[in-house]
Amino acid sequence: MVIVLIRTTVRADVDRAAYEALNTQMYELVQTLPGFVSAKDFTSSDGDAVSMVTFESLEALRAWREHPDHVIAQHRGKTEMYASYRVEVCEVVRAYDFALPSV
Amino acid sequence: MVIVLIRTTVRADVDRAAYEALNTQMYELVQTLPGFVSAKDFTSSDGDAVSMVTFESLEALRAWREHPDHVIAQHRGKTEMYASYRVEVCEVVRAYDFALPSV
Repeated sequence: MVIVLIRTTVRADVDRAAYEALNTQMYELVQTLPGFVSAKDFTSSDGDAVSMVTFESLEALRAWREHPDHVIAQHRGKTEMYASYRVEVCEVVRAYDFALPSV
Repeated sequence: MVIVLIRTTVRADVDRAAYEALNTQMYELVQTLPGFVSAKDFTSSDGDAVSMVTFESLEALRAWREHPDHVIAQHRGKTEMYASYRVEVCEVVRAYDFALPSV
């Protein structure tokens, strides 16, 4: 499993409607790809925001990075929309869980 | 860098004050360890909660897992406090960022 953590800030003069539309479009697209697991936005109590996108493998993530529509969106993001971003690609090296037996 | 994602639910009958006190104590302890980077709690708009704890390395994480006070706390968590938990240990395999040059 691969978890991508994404933190972004948009430019002050960004076209909000265009930004939201592109975001929605990409969110709908990524969900159709093989190996996509989940995508969700999180916020901390002090206003730190992070998007968490999970794929089954690094190969599935690569297919997403290289998807033609996504490549165009990435370019628009960088040239028109984002003031900054930080992306961390994380591989799950170990996972464990615990649950009380239900009564 | 190693990011640990932790999702927990506590038992309905948990002693809230004891649980919060133990949590605070562990949070204060982990920050004193070499290789600790950050710890923060996040929530999604649909109420999904995740704690994100970052260490410099798997070795730093191991030192935390094996810290005597933490071992005791883990045991209390499992026997007295948690209804369930899920822990994912993630290694950052790639990171990149972008920032507009400041004017």
